[in-house]
Amino acid sequence: MKEAVPDVVIQRLPMYAHILRALKEVGVESIGSRELGAMLRTTPAQIRKDLSYFGKFGKQGMGYDVSQLLDELTGVLGLGRQWSLALIGTGRLGRALIEHKGFVDDDFRMIAVFDKSHRRIGRKLGGLVIQDVVELEQTVKERGIEIGIVAVPPSEAQRVIDSLVRSGTRAILNYAPIVARVPKGVQLRQITPLHALQSMTYYLKAELTSLVPTSAPQTKKKARGSEN
Amino acid sequence: MKEAVPDVVIQRLPMYAHILRALKEVGVESIGSRELGAMLRTTPAQIRKDLSYFGKFGKQGMGYDVSQLLDELTGVLGLGRQWSLALIGTGRLGRALIEHKGFVDDDFRMIAVFDKSHRRIGRKLGGLVIQDVVELEQTVKERGIEIGIVAVPPSEAQRVIDSLVRSGTRAILNYAPIVARVPKGVQLRQITPLHALQSMTYYLKAELTSLVPTSAPQTKKKARGSEN
Repeated sequence: MKEAVPDVVIQRLPMYAHILRALKEVGVESIGSRELGAMLRTTPAQIRKDLSYFGKFGKQGMGYDVSQLLDELTGVLGLGRQWSLALIGTGRLGRALIEHKGFVDDDFRMIAVFDKSHRRIGRKLGGLVIQDVVELEQTVKERGIEIGIVAVPPSEAQRVIDSLVRSGTRAILNYAPIVARVPKGVQLRQITPLHALQSMTYYLKAELTSLVPTSAPQTKKKARGSEN
Repeated sequence: MKEAVPDVVIQRLPMYAHILRALKEVGVESIGSRELGAMLRTTPAQIRKDLSYFGKFGKQGMGYDVSQLLDELTGVLGLGRQWSLALIGTGRLGRALIEHKGFVDDDFRMIAVFDKSHRRIGRKLGGLVIQDVVELEQTVKERGIEIGIVAVPPSEAQRVIDSLVRSGTRAILNYAPIVARVPKGVQLRQITPLHALQSMTYYLKAELTSLVPTSAPQTKKKARGSEN
């Protein structure tokens, strides 16, 4: 049995796959951990360590075979098949998610959308009829929906998440800025641009502070950009 | 001089502040690291370690003073003042960001929007006139815009990011699914829901695999939900 892979490594894999796909498209056949590290703004050692969880790739001094590594990561991530999604909340944000090309790719397919507003229920969105959110649990069970996208207001988000969990959804992408609770075994990812902004102002503030003489302790650290 | 604070800690602070604000609003005056840890799905030890970077809070067995800790974190994060934003890209995604309440709060103010499409330039969006993207660098310099939000297609994103950097922007929130390059000293955060989805399917796939008898190695790890 393989060693358990840390979640932080799993979270980096989509970006690895993304880069490898781009390299393959332009005809690059092999790539070294140094070049891959530079593209991903990390060290060659980190690249080698991350990839070592998934078997032996590349030979000393030879670099990785782009196509082989991409296939392996695609398999590891469970891509290359279609996952079914449901969207809950069809306000401005939800509508933008549905209509924005590039939100998902061919591996993901939105098969149901829900709202609680009677002005919206019954209308069409992205080719789907908006259903009443009271039908959420039954629909998720019947249609085997695997991933829920939560785009409702913060005050309603936990209730929707609980419904998804009860109906068997094991992966939830939550846009509401709450600290959502899910039981162990359920994956939850937050998309909270406000928090990303707030973590950047820490560095901006530190820069401003260091421009003027002050007796306050200064933080000199200037981190490189990082994945959110 | 204080010890440099790891970026991973900085990235957690907005959620700490978010929780503390909610606690303060409902009248909670003090809270223990155990309770705070439960709310943030982390350990009391992690909470104590994270907060120890910013000075002494709370006494053994007494818990943290909610109001005092919130004030401190607000200061550390550089919040409680207004930061100016520019949005580049006013397609569906950009428009949704502008129009979606809750995308930003009072600490952030959108003061300019840009597009390259002549169908859009000159129109109004969120009370602002959409400017030609060729004016980006000059406007950012003149108006001292501090943070750029990039919502253009992937093929144009790096060019826009380079413009922002040249004009002095030190923090960029990028929605395009690219591995963007920024020089040291410039903060970059990615909002890439597709990658969040792809990192969750890893776990879903592992669950499916473990339901059927197989000779393939199984990964048994079921990570708790985590911040993206």
